[in-house]
Amino acid sequence: MLTALALNCSLNNSSKDSHTQTLIDRLFGVVESLGVRTKTIRLADKRIPPGITDDAGEGDEWPQVLDEIRKADILVFGSPIWMGQLSSVGQLALERLNGSPPKDKQTGQFILYNKVVGFAVTGNEDGAQNTIRQLMLALNHLGATVPPNVDTYWLGEAGPGPSYGDDGTGLDHEYTNKTTLYAAHNLVWFARLLREHPIPTNLKTLGKRASEGSLEAMPSAVSRK
Amino acid sequence: MLTALALNCSLNNSSKDSHTQTLIDRLFGVVESLGVRTKTIRLADKRIPPGITDDAGEGDEWPQVLDEIRKADILVFGSPIWMGQLSSVGQLALERLNGSPPKDKQTGQFILYNKVVGFAVTGNEDGAQNTIRQLMLALNHLGATVPPNVDTYWLGEAGPGPSYGDDGTGLDHEYTNKTTLYAAHNLVWFARLLREHPIPTNLKTLGKRASEGSLEAMPSAVSRK
Amino acid sequence: MLTALALNCSLNNSSKDSHTQTLIDRLFGVVESLGVRTKTIRLADKRIPPGITDDAGEGDEWPQVLDEIRKADILVFGSPIWMGQLSSVGQLALERLNGSPPKDKQTGQFILYNKVVGFAVTGNEDGAQNTIRQLMLALNHLGATVPPNVDTYWLGEAGPGPSYGDDGTGLDHEYTNKTTLYAAHNLVWFARLLREHPIPTNLKTLGKRASEGSLEAMPSAVSRK
Amino acid sequence: MLTALALNCSLNNSSKDSHTQTLIDRLFGVVESLGVRTKTIRLADKRIPPGITDDAGEGDEWPQVLDEIRKADILVFGSPIWMGQLSSVGQLALERLNGSPPKDKQTGQFILYNKVVGFAVTGNEDGAQNTIRQLMLALNHLGATVPPNVDTYWLGEAGPGPSYGDDGTGLDHEYTNKTTLYAAHNLVWFARLLREHPIPTNLKTLGKRASEGSLEAMPSAVSRK
Repeated sequence: MLTALALNCSLNNSSKDSHTQTLIDRLFGVVESLGVRTKTIRLADKRIPPGITDDAGEGDEWPQVLDEIRKADILVFGSPIWMGQLSSVGQLALERLNGSPPKDKQTGQFILYNKVVGFAVTGNEDGAQNTIRQLMLALNHLGATVPPNVDTYWLGEAGPGPSYGDDGTGLDHEYTNKTTLYAAHNLVWFARLLREHPIPTNLKTLGKRASEGSLEAMPSAVSRK
Repeated sequence: MLTALALNCSLNNSSKDSHTQTLIDRLFGVVESLGVRTKTIRLADKRIPPGITDDAGEGDEWPQVLDEIRKADILVFGSPIWMGQLSSVGQLALERLNGSPPKDKQTGQFILYNKVVGFAVTGNEDGAQNTIRQLMLALNHLGATVPPNVDTYWLGEAGPGPSYGDDGTGLDHEYTNKTTLYAAHNLVWFARLLREHPIPTNLKTLGKRASEGSLEAMPSAVSRK
Repeated sequence: MLTALALNCSLNNSSKDSHTQTLIDRLFGVVESLGVRTKTIRLADKRIPPGITDDAGEGDEWPQVLDEIRKADILVFGSPIWMGQLSSVGQLALERLNGSPPKDKQTGQFILYNKVVGFAVTGNEDGAQNTIRQLMLALNHLGATVPPNVDTYWLGEAGPGPSYGDDGTGLDHEYTNKTTLYAAHNLVWFARLLREHPIPTNLKTLGKRASEGSLEAMPSAVSRK
Repeated sequence: MLTALALNCSLNNSSKDSHTQTLIDRLFGVVESLGVRTKTIRLADKRIPPGITDDAGEGDEWPQVLDEIRKADILVFGSPIWMGQLSSVGQLALERLNGSPPKDKQTGQFILYNKVVGFAVTGNEDGAQNTIRQLMLALNHLGATVPPNVDTYWLGEAGPGPSYGDDGTGLDHEYTNKTTLYAAHNLVWFARLLREHPIPTNLKTLGKRASEGSLEAMPSAVSRK
């Protein structure tokens, strides 16, 4: 059975409601209906010090999060928008991931190889796509595959206003519901595909080729002249 | 046989050298060595007026470009960096793509479904990842799949300086050569995978579900309670 | 009398309505009430080829635009949002500005020194702040001063929807009207301030100091130890 | 006497060296030589929980930082680049600032009114301008004035490599030294200008005008027809 993990990058811990969680729940409702087990971690519930390391030592709860990430086939980053961009909690998670070791010593594949990523972003207004851009490239560099149309977001008109789920705000918003469905279906289909066809690329072998000489020296470049 | 198409978003037409073309050529050298046919279009050679339309009428050469895009399994955007961001020619191409009809009427899948995208960016300094972020989300929204580690770039130290390929600048740069190899291998492997396993998602059916009611009304959301 | 110039970066020329123009008009209504002369150029009405040059030769109409920019105390970039970011027409204007000579040979000050910049952005949804970020740093690097709260934008809820001014859409939106007033007042006050107190910084002299040695050799760095 | 405050957004506390601090020190060397008192706070030395509040209660050390910000005429954000963007510590500071009360009840001016901001960013490669964009708009929205050319950064070629100051790396880099001089001079000149000519804009009065009706109802908009 496939597993999906959401990291909720809200600034608040679970003692407070999270608008982002509402959107994650809706996305995961569809994901579950497609036969995938889901789990969410509210990052603010954990003690995660900043740094570029997979384990900051005593009291660091990132290693537990990392274990869950390793087990997941689908990874969803859920984030609120603050100042038009990714929350500090989300950026912190990216930094900690960046310090994490490769998935596999033999292939050197980065930690998110063979996983697909999706995005669930909420805010009062503006900044969802910017937040997704920040996450998408970072996670892709860390090895994640991005299937088409795997982000969903809700935001209101320019300026302050109600948030997603407040008195039902946005729950019937057709565009958000549509992109939630697209995201769920594409995430699950691609996760199955990669489970059946894991990426064979050996980054260590390729890296060795690059370190041994310029591309000019390689048959590939010679052959095309 | 698979086909790869690069769109070179240089501000200059082919009467001038393009540093970005040098990097595209190197990437495509490896791509060809993996058994894929390649082709590059220098967008500045074409008459492409701005707009959100697939065909602006007489004299518009975008429809020819669009034909090539439709045929490609792998699409590479190559762009120089100007003011730290995507060139105007690159943004123009995104806008024109945005006005293009779905790949398929029956599924409603967007124009880049079942294609994978890669990125080749050059500049004197700073801005490569920002340029890639701009391209990556836009192309993903248009249906493209982003395999892991499919961008390659070269840039020098802060401030003005030589460009990629000037008197050999950067051609031996290990990091750029390594990411070029990663990108080529992952693009080709994923393009083959999607050729054999085209994405089945029917966006029209899902869109209809979203328009008929909120997600709450759907079995998926009900079942998880 | 002070002069304000708006560059409308709509993809369409004046034969079509521009939602961005509606917002520029409202901003300039307030600016005029504060005693400043205003003028708008719809960039798509001009023949402006891409490039990093202040004059691309015969038929290039950028030099006319540049003349108007040179005369203005206040420069407003108005842009629609496409794919969540600055329009290609806007990026083209930045590239052409980037190729323009310094305002002054003696001081080496960049072309926008002693000018203030403001921003008016419209879209269906999402991307206003991202568009403003793209413009703000670029124009600041070219010498412009950014007074506080000089951007105004309107956008609707996530996904497609009506645009600013369509059947009155957004014209009564309190947040947009408030930021329009803030922008107008701060632009005009700062433009007057800079008219009376032009920036004295001599970039050529400072550049010479930097080229003559590292900062360590300079009294400033020595004195602080 | 004018005061400049730098917030160092390094992920590490003062028990470790900070490459960003090296660049801040050089910038502040010049700033001091121009007669300004300087102070740096390493944010990672403080206990600052995430949130959108000026005071999170017992143990929160942000209020101390906020006091220093209030006293400063010049505010410099110094940040390392992680994943090509602003550090989580920097984003956390923006979020806390966003929750801080206006500078002044009578005018409603936001907390950074009459302050100028500058930027000092370091990284191995790529992402400086992107980091500055993230900071610049956020701080401008919070009331800061951005004089021209007030950012300085150092970064190396694409990919991993030495950091600023490692065995002298970058200390003689002409571009970084030049922009450091530009930034120092423009920050100090503008801070003096604003000290002598504080911004008079009353945001509360303007906000009231916006809430009382659309811009159409205002003399400014009527008069221009």
